[in-house]
Amino acid sequence: MTITVFGRSASAFNLILFYVLKELGLSYELVQTTPEEIKSPDYLATKHPFGKTPSLNDDGFQIYETRAVARYLINKYQGTKSSTVLIPSDVQKAALVDQFISVETSYYTQPLVKMLTQLILVKKQGNEPDLKIVNEAREELDKNLDVYEKLLEGKDYLTGEFSLVDFLHIPSTYYAFKAGEGELWNKRPNVSRWWKNISEREGWKSIVTEYKLDEVV
Amino acid sequence: MTITVFGRSASAFNLILFYVLKELGLSYELVQTTPEEIKSPDYLATKHPFGKTPSLNDDGFQIYETRAVARYLINKYQGTKSSTVLIPSDVQKAALVDQFISVETSYYTQPLVKMLTQLILVKKQGNEPDLKIVNEAREELDKNLDVYEKLLEGKDYLTGEFSLVDFLHIPSTYYAFKAGEGELWNKRPNVSRWWKNISEREGWKSIVTEYKLDEVV
Repeated sequence: MTITVFGRSASAFNLILFYVLKELGLSYELVQTTPEEIKSPDYLATKHPFGKTPSLNDDGFQIYETRAVARYLINKYQGTKSSTVLIPSDVQKAALVDQFISVETSYYTQPLVKMLTQLILVKKQGNEPDLKIVNEAREELDKNLDVYEKLLEGKDYLTGEFSLVDFLHIPSTYYAFKAGEGELWNKRPNVSRWWKNISEREGWKSIVTEYKLDEVV
Repeated sequence: MTITVFGRSASAFNLILFYVLKELGLSYELVQTTPEEIKSPDYLATKHPFGKTPSLNDDGFQIYETRAVARYLINKYQGTKSSTVLIPSDVQKAALVDQFISVETSYYTQPLVKMLTQLILVKKQGNEPDLKIVNEAREELDKNLDVYEKLLEGKDYLTGEFSLVDFLHIPSTYYAFKAGEGELWNKRPNVSRWWKNISEREGWKSIVTEYKLDEVV
């Protein structure tokens, strides 16, 4: 079994995948790509047709889009190298994971990435962030975190048990704290308790160390 | 078994669910909701915390977000009342369905819904559509449909075989044609062949008749 990830070690979506691989107990090789490479005809034809990362190759089977790759790895390897359960086999429990993945995609990651693109990427390129975009995205996220606060009432994790969907929130939220936006989480008791539960897991802390995330922003 | 859908029969996301239910051979009751109802404290607490439709109840189990509800119904009922396969059991084939669902969510439905909100909903409310939003969304979709054209080369369906992911494109594209935007699909041979394959299925045609979609826009 040879798993190769084509990606960039500082990208939030790539970090999700590294963490999934770690929790499943799978080893992998990372092939670092440059912003130019991922727009090349070869990369578009064989790795990701929309020119994004990550893309994963598992013994010749190529698959892209983070959430799909994570599901694939879980379907194929869950329970074989570690005991961590990221998607439960029970149909109703699995449905709740799917439900919250859809919530994460539309109501959490979308405004958060919009905000972080301005606060981190645009700044890094030496430009001024567009504060109108930042403020609109922050406002949308703030409103949606009010709903998360209710959803997390009396729960340690989104579905009740630790699962793939909690993972999907970690890297982008980690970067939000680094960008000085932690108050959005800290001011809500249930949301901040949940954030503590998921960000202080050993697996994630070892990813932070391994990929030197402290030095990234 | 009693399946109840809380929703609106003209909404693209609801139509996806009705079509999934039909292809799986499941009967259901539709409880029509109003725009006011879905923002009520009761609906938010028991049906969908973000105030959207559809939300589904299956013998007491409540689940929301279209793609998650579809997966749930497939996991639970596929093969029991009809022979249609919407997600294959083979791990690699299922991974391709997941991959294209992620593509559909981010690169197709997102710009398309942005465009249709202006061209249909805003117009219906008696206001002028924001042409800047329409043009930006159309440009993004146009660029992404170039990638679809390559992905669909030599294929009848996105993964090769008819699956859930083809479904997810149908209702919003149907409305795009009604809004006069069909040229985006028609001008690309592979994309228009695929659209013909999926939109001319008996199941979808019976949904169009049953919900009187011809009269909607």
